[in-house]
Amino acid sequence: MQLLEEKIRQDGQVLPGNILKVGSFLNHQIDVGLLDKMGEEIYRLYGKDRVTKILTIEASGIAIACMTARHFGVPVVFAKKSQSQNISGDVYSVKVESFTHKKVYDVVVSGEFLNAEDRVLIVDDFLANGKALIGLIDLVRQAGAQVVGAAIAIEKGFQGGGDLVRKQGIRVESLAIIEQMDSGEIRFR
Amino acid sequence: MQLLEEKIRQDGQVLPGNILKVGSFLNHQIDVGLLDKMGEEIYRLYGKDRVTKILTIEASGIAIACMTARHFGVPVVFAKKSQSQNISGDVYSVKVESFTHKKVYDVVVSGEFLNAEDRVLIVDDFLANGKALIGLIDLVRQAGAQVVGAAIAIEKGFQGGGDLVRKQGIRVESLAIIEQMDSGEIRFR
Repeated sequence: MQLLEEKIRQDGQVLPGNILKVGSFLNHQIDVGLLDKMGEEIYRLYGKDRVTKILTIEASGIAIACMTARHFGVPVVFAKKSQSQNISGDVYSVKVESFTHKKVYDVVVSGEFLNAEDRVLIVDDFLANGKALIGLIDLVRQAGAQVVGAAIAIEKGFQGGGDLVRKQGIRVESLAIIEQMDSGEIRFR
Repeated sequence: MQLLEEKIRQDGQVLPGNILKVGSFLNHQIDVGLLDKMGEEIYRLYGKDRVTKILTIEASGIAIACMTARHFGVPVVFAKKSQSQNISGDVYSVKVESFTHKKVYDVVVSGEFLNAEDRVLIVDDFLANGKALIGLIDLVRQAGAQVVGAAIAIEKGFQGGGDLVRKQGIRVESLAIIEQMDSGEIRFR
């Protein structure tokens, strides 16, 4: 998606350790108009796939998930990191290691909000080594639901997570795929 | 807001310890259409106040903040709980105790995203004892910015946080104020 690539080139900052800072528009400050256009593009890609729910993970996936769900007219479910007091009863649960925070989280979704009839589109802001996405796919399968595919804002192609999931036969559409950025300059796939 | 009160009566669950579960539409599964109508109502309340930014706190405030920002045409900034690797440089920071999780968090906003010219509307899903809201007001003031007011989805009136902040002369508009729910039945102000 050209608009997003331009925004990344213009406002993204590459930091040591393969970190891309896009806090000015995606995951700290949020450019809601841009995210709405991204949601529209995701609807163009998956609009005919009879999606019944959009699944994401807190916190920064929530914004893009909501701005996407608007176009689909379906609810968002966001998976929570670590079991909170307000989730009771049956839960689907998986352990996920965060690339950014170097921590392992319990990621949970209440059993009430995913079921075997659901056709789930997974939406997230970033895809790097794929740990979060693989965890979310696991949650959908625990519910007996169908994974329609994944829609990602920014995929770090060089970290391999996206291709790993594609090799499992799951459709992964990323609006921008970064092939290389280790020289500080960003090259898209 | 009648639509929200009806939804709370219909789908909200009262648990011991003054906990209201609204995970089916507000903070685990998200009814994006309802949140969009809530954003429209918040725009009706604050649309003439020259708001330049909407500030919320992760995670569950992000959805209502985004669906509100759409109507204002301004960015969302979400405060993060605990300093993350991806926030560098100058930050505004405050300690906030969570009612739900019984923990104290460092709540931070990068210095880049709030400045003295900003007129900030604080948006959140819940207002109980007011700790989070008071923390967010503190962050706005650290930036030298103006607090236009706060817009809250559900205020637990009986916990006093909203009235505490109103007494400081800050405008607080809650779309639903629960006066009492200790009998398991919900009574609105």
